[in-house]
Amino acid sequence: MDTMFECSKERLDDKIKTFSAFGATGNGGITRFALSEADIAARNEFKKRMAAIGAEVLTDDMANMYATLPGGDKSLPRIALGSHCDSVRNGGNYDGILGVIAAMEVLETVADKGIPHRNPLTAVIWTNEEGALYPPAMMSSGVICGKFDKGAMLASRGVSPEAEGKTFGEALAVSGFSGSREYRFNPTDYRAMLELHIEQGPVMEAENKQIGVVDGVVGMFNYRIRTRGQADHAGTTPMKFRRDALLAAASAIKWLHTELDKLPKDLVYTTGELKLHPNVHTVIPDEADFSLDVRHWDPAVLESALGIVKSIPKEFDRCSVSYSEAWSRKRCEFDPNLVNIVEKSAQALGYSYMRIHSGPGHDAQYVSDMLPTTMIFVPSKDGHSHCEEEFTSLDDAWAGINVALNTILSL
Amino acid sequence: MDTMFECSKERLDDKIKTFSAFGATGNGGITRFALSEADIAARNEFKKRMAAIGAEVLTDDMANMYATLPGGDKSLPRIALGSHCDSVRNGGNYDGILGVIAAMEVLETVADKGIPHRNPLTAVIWTNEEGALYPPAMMSSGVICGKFDKGAMLASRGVSPEAEGKTFGEALAVSGFSGSREYRFNPTDYRAMLELHIEQGPVMEAENKQIGVVDGVVGMFNYRIRTRGQADHAGTTPMKFRRDALLAAASAIKWLHTELDKLPKDLVYTTGELKLHPNVHTVIPDEADFSLDVRHWDPAVLESALGIVKSIPKEFDRCSVSYSEAWSRKRCEFDPNLVNIVEKSAQALGYSYMRIHSGPGHDAQYVSDMLPTTMIFVPSKDGHSHCEEEFTSLDDAWAGINVALNTILSL
Repeated sequence: MDTMFECSKERLDDKIKTFSAFGATGNGGITRFALSEADIAARNEFKKRMAAIGAEVLTDDMANMYATLPGGDKSLPRIALGSHCDSVRNGGNYDGILGVIAAMEVLETVADKGIPHRNPLTAVIWTNEEGALYPPAMMSSGVICGKFDKGAMLASRGVSPEAEGKTFGEALAVSGFSGSREYRFNPTDYRAMLELHIEQGPVMEAENKQIGVVDGVVGMFNYRIRTRGQADHAGTTPMKFRRDALLAAASAIKWLHTELDKLPKDLVYTTGELKLHPNVHTVIPDEADFSLDVRHWDPAVLESALGIVKSIPKEFDRCSVSYSEAWSRKRCEFDPNLVNIVEKSAQALGYSYMRIHSGPGHDAQYVSDMLPTTMIFVPSKDGHSHCEEEFTSLDDAWAGINVALNTILSL
Repeated sequence: MDTMFECSKERLDDKIKTFSAFGATGNGGITRFALSEADIAARNEFKKRMAAIGAEVLTDDMANMYATLPGGDKSLPRIALGSHCDSVRNGGNYDGILGVIAAMEVLETVADKGIPHRNPLTAVIWTNEEGALYPPAMMSSGVICGKFDKGAMLASRGVSPEAEGKTFGEALAVSGFSGSREYRFNPTDYRAMLELHIEQGPVMEAENKQIGVVDGVVGMFNYRIRTRGQADHAGTTPMKFRRDALLAAASAIKWLHTELDKLPKDLVYTTGELKLHPNVHTVIPDEADFSLDVRHWDPAVLESALGIVKSIPKEFDRCSVSYSEAWSRKRCEFDPNLVNIVEKSAQALGYSYMRIHSGPGHDAQYVSDMLPTTMIFVPSKDGHSHCEEEFTSLDDAWAGINVALNTILSL
């Protein structure tokens, strides 16, 4: 193995603190929706820091930003590092932004130490990964990679009051970050893309590992389960006449747990969203509709889980039960060569590491359809993410970025 | 028994059809929030019809309306009949308004046929019984009877976009129906109050009875049950680490059904409202909060039910469980003498009838604290109410109003 390099822990700490102020909630976390004032402040800080090391900063027509430090050989393709800087409501200071900070820190280290490198290095901000204000998630990497239609994305209307009724396209037009289509990420210009991200789960902490060598993103399916009964008055309808859709949903949820728990223990499934109608305390609910999110690395396990969902009884508590697919995705396998280089870098740096699958989707997943891509995970304290308690220690973040730096330099 | 009188079925039919147009949804029902354009149209129609028979129409400072037909003896107290003309969203053509129509029909019949009566007769519209746009329910009878503070009620802000951000007080000021405090219902001026209402339940239909002789309103308690877990990412958190508040709520609901079903079969209890946090399909819910509405005539049965609620396990599925009282009310017993007269009138008219308790609350319940009061129920098709399918046949409505008419004339 070649000489190993390290980035600056002090500069990293300063960046984490600086970016944590953009959209700070006052409770230790941030709300930084895509194209909000806070997001724009973060983008300006990125621009300022990258310009300071002589990187050229370009913005494409989806507001994705690319800061490129020239390499020793102009004819060689670029190597990209990046993630997103938007957050969910009351999110944390690490999800997404740590990957952008990592990209900046790698470029700053290379520039600062004058580390010789042949390929140009590009730090990327992918716009609106969370899709928290303007759905869907992974919007702009999705457009670049041809998963989403740009027109449909521009028309996506904000789902919370902060959008003031605007669409993503309207917010983009006034953001100052609507750049040129010609600057879009073009896969033929790139050698590889690397995304550092927090694990967002408790596994690495439980296994006491600093580095997650991510070999892909698990497959998943997302279903809606509906129960339909009859709305009647809470004060007048004898129990024997009732068709209570919430009681039926409770039965369905309990049934799903009993049956899905028979599958391998590393299957994860979640009923995270439930809509109840009319949702009034004096009325027996006539409809409940809940989400079922199921994820596993092995397609055969997912197939078994789907079989269980499809065998749900047609009736619970005199209410009808139905299901429909909302969406699903096959697992994404990252580039095996890149994955090996990440692993070797972690090993050479003397960090504890483990192979891991990503449960959540990431921009890297879309990019991996176009060119060799992989990810590096760092641990999440208590497994929390998408909340203000989200935390990764400075030492772990630093270790992850050192792995990213040396992986890049090995390429 | 004296001569029995009958009101006009044709005029009744015309009134039901006329009022069904005010706020018609186009799907057989109405949305007629208090003080809305539709409500004002209904009030103007009431005013016009009552003025046409020579009744004096006065409005008090809560927009309650009183149309009074003089009696043979001016020194005698009035007899009141009435209900409300507001509805819930997508409500039906009978709840509340049928009691107002009944009051008009009684006065019109007395005037039209020149039936001798000694007491003045007053048809009343109680403002905002549903509280659908401006909570709480039974707002204006509550103010008149001293249950609610007028200032607090005026400050009640509309909960749906139709209110355009206005408070009840602001809507009242521009409604044209903000009358004088001196015209408020004064119990010393009244001999009795009678409210005809649809049953809103399936019992009378199942028993094949036309007239419900209502002896009171059941007692009830309304609790909130909360489960608290931990919000984590749906894709990263192994099942064994999860504390899923919706799963715990499902367990709690199933547990409540198992335990409460051991009590007498005529106990009714409802979990009609559930709030889930953060209610996102990719996040394990950290909090569920649902309502539990429990009603029964017998205080001892309610006490047993409360004991069960308070013995709910402190934990389900690794989530904590807690409860708190939202509110409760003791049963309300109507005036036994009036109840007997209603029963005798039904009997004398040859209608099928039954004694019944009211499950829902009504304006009559507040009024009964001040003077002799009772109610007459007519059947609801399939027990439905608060929905567009709400229906009571013309024959049943007519029968109910004939009972009201003859009850009034017996007093």
